[in-house]
Amino acid sequence: MNDFTYKDNALYCENVPVKAIADKFPTPFYLYSYATFMDHFRKIKKAFEAVDPLICFSMKSNSNLSIARALVREGAGLDIVSGGELFKALKVGCPADRIVYASVGKTEAEIESAIRSNILFFNVESVPELIMIDTVSRRLKEKPRVALRVNPDVSADTHEYITTGKKENKFGIDFTTAEDIFDNENKYSNVSLEGIHVHIGSQITDTEPFVKAISKVIEFLEKSAVSVKWLNIGGGFGITYGQEKAKTAEEFASRIIPLVKGKGFRLILEPGRFIIGNAGILVAKVLYIKTTSGGKRFAIVNAGMNDLIRPSLYDAYHEITPVVKLRSETHMYDIVGPICESGDFLGKNRELPELVEDEYLAVMSTGAYGFAMASNYNSRPRPAELLVKNGRVRVIRRAETYKDLISCEKMLKELK
Amino acid sequence: MNDFTYKDNALYCENVPVKAIADKFPTPFYLYSYATFMDHFRKIKKAFEAVDPLICFSMKSNSNLSIARALVREGAGLDIVSGGELFKALKVGCPADRIVYASVGKTEAEIESAIRSNILFFNVESVPELIMIDTVSRRLKEKPRVALRVNPDVSADTHEYITTGKKENKFGIDFTTAEDIFDNENKYSNVSLEGIHVHIGSQITDTEPFVKAISKVIEFLEKSAVSVKWLNIGGGFGITYGQEKAKTAEEFASRIIPLVKGKGFRLILEPGRFIIGNAGILVAKVLYIKTTSGGKRFAIVNAGMNDLIRPSLYDAYHEITPVVKLRSETHMYDIVGPICESGDFLGKNRELPELVEDEYLAVMSTGAYGFAMASNYNSRPRPAELLVKNGRVRVIRRAETYKDLISCEKMLKELK
Repeated sequence: MNDFTYKDNALYCENVPVKAIADKFPTPFYLYSYATFMDHFRKIKKAFEAVDPLICFSMKSNSNLSIARALVREGAGLDIVSGGELFKALKVGCPADRIVYASVGKTEAEIESAIRSNILFFNVESVPELIMIDTVSRRLKEKPRVALRVNPDVSADTHEYITTGKKENKFGIDFTTAEDIFDNENKYSNVSLEGIHVHIGSQITDTEPFVKAISKVIEFLEKSAVSVKWLNIGGGFGITYGQEKAKTAEEFASRIIPLVKGKGFRLILEPGRFIIGNAGILVAKVLYIKTTSGGKRFAIVNAGMNDLIRPSLYDAYHEITPVVKLRSETHMYDIVGPICESGDFLGKNRELPELVEDEYLAVMSTGAYGFAMASNYNSRPRPAELLVKNGRVRVIRRAETYKDLISCEKMLKELK
Repeated sequence: MNDFTYKDNALYCENVPVKAIADKFPTPFYLYSYATFMDHFRKIKKAFEAVDPLICFSMKSNSNLSIARALVREGAGLDIVSGGELFKALKVGCPADRIVYASVGKTEAEIESAIRSNILFFNVESVPELIMIDTVSRRLKEKPRVALRVNPDVSADTHEYITTGKKENKFGIDFTTAEDIFDNENKYSNVSLEGIHVHIGSQITDTEPFVKAISKVIEFLEKSAVSVKWLNIGGGFGITYGQEKAKTAEEFASRIIPLVKGKGFRLILEPGRFIIGNAGILVAKVLYIKTTSGGKRFAIVNAGMNDLIRPSLYDAYHEITPVVKLRSETHMYDIVGPICESGDFLGKNRELPELVEDEYLAVMSTGAYGFAMASNYNSRPRPAELLVKNGRVRVIRRAETYKDLISCEKMLKELK
């Protein structure tokens, strides 16, 4: 479900026509629906209510302050992966005891600030990291909580770049090592070992990989006679971009709850894409329609791989649709950006109603890993982020300017 | 040739030990050698001096102001691809008559500001764009110069994302259409049609694709009895990242000059990578050495795909080497970043002297398409850019801070 729908051939974001927004704000821009992401959050909460989990929104999917703040005020915690995200999480007023921190490469400074902030726990990815946290804790005379991120060696049937639970990935600790850590807890006396974390990847549209991974963890806990306060099952719930038949929150819950209920720990979920993915679109304008002598049609738009890199990086599919559907004749188009490389495309071989210059297109389901991965490649300022709530359109991040591009630079005039 | 060399097992940038720089400035950072990029520029100039070309440095490869300024003051022009690059080109004091502007997606506003700046010419990528330039020119009562970018349908044997001269690419105009435009010049009476542009791709290590493409263009000019003032043969000269045997400037020149000399036009070259690619490195620190139970070794460093996306996006190879080579025993490592996806790697299966925590690694040949493509993914501030010249280390772009991450955001407090 999302609140981007057509009425009389015009795309709406909730009850606001997207064309009216595009006529007012310079394109390209990201546009989010408050009702949609809030609805997704509530659906997960409701689906899992039998086990009352802590739902930590994954900031890496979208770290806009206004969005995170809205979710936090609704009861969400935050799943962070860096010192920058800790900074943002605290900025939006997230209670520290709802912040969990994963990353294979936490620096000493990042660990120190997370300990000082008294976050709920670290998801620990390796023995050297555990030693680092223990060392910093001793120095600070603190005793932070940690969860071991185990690597269950489960295949998640997703893009190789976003599968994370195979033993050849850089993530997590194998069960043998995890058992050894639990057996020798006293070696890490400056941390409190309270949880297990397992996260097998992203955009997983089936329930089976979760069942497999969680079952392996439960089996491990039982076999090792280890008891924990927290089981963090990560994120990865997939969404529908195109032809996928993504599962609903209820479907995920109905398979997961029986595995974890009454086991004595509290469940943590880390959804990102599932909450915000379909709650955002990228709106762009057609600059030129270019037809080659071979009859191939390109719609060149004013958004490129710097704004949205998923098609190029992951070969990801995003539906692309006219903001106003005026024409019935269709053609095949490559929808490409202005950037000077062939990797700069948003969609290839798309059958669309005949497109004309200056019309707006919506690139759907770009709320997650869209703006979060944007760059200034080709010296292009990053686009604005807008939010619709209750019929009102608000700028939650302004578009960058040319001046912003050079704000950190210091031009050496005496050079040559 | 570049000025990153080992003396007594320590990596130097010109005459400065990289370790001394890394001990002083927080890692990761990009580090450039002034002598190297200036040498590369001069080598191209010298190799082609028989035809005295205008050499326009391709800003999309690296748009740092100090670097562009140094090259411009040495006589370079600038190859730009956006309004942002025009802004930067003017900022560094590049004379407008040394600026050429290519991009399939120039907006009306970008075209207007380039006309007002009186740049040397537009590289026009399509008929609709030509019409747009003509229309804007009429309104402004100006008569800008244009070159037609032709698409020679030549294969460049490089990554599919950076090949641009095949007919299925979005770039350029086929010869039939180009001839039609020359035949009907009077239809575009507000522009002065003065050149041909051909650019077949990037990182091309052989001379043959250039010879083929230029020959096709010359043949076209002769067959159509078209005479132009400018022949812009683009960029694309490849460099050595690993095992490639890249050609020297002299080798490219020796094949290209005979094709173009005495033909009545002035040659333009648009090198980017060839000038700055091997003139920059990315310096990172090893955070953790992680060994799996299967015996696989990961060196987790504090630079990731947000800092350098080429390995992930193009499967690009960059040599990775310890800043100080202390140990003789070697192991196989995956060099990976802290970012939470498996696509975050800098190099896989690299045999390196045994690595230890806290030591520095250099990711070589990252001067081009390195910082230019950096993002804030995972809320990671972008790294600093440093420049060595005459033994002095200068910050030419400071590292971003957490505050920079949110400087364009407006947090809506009343939301929920």
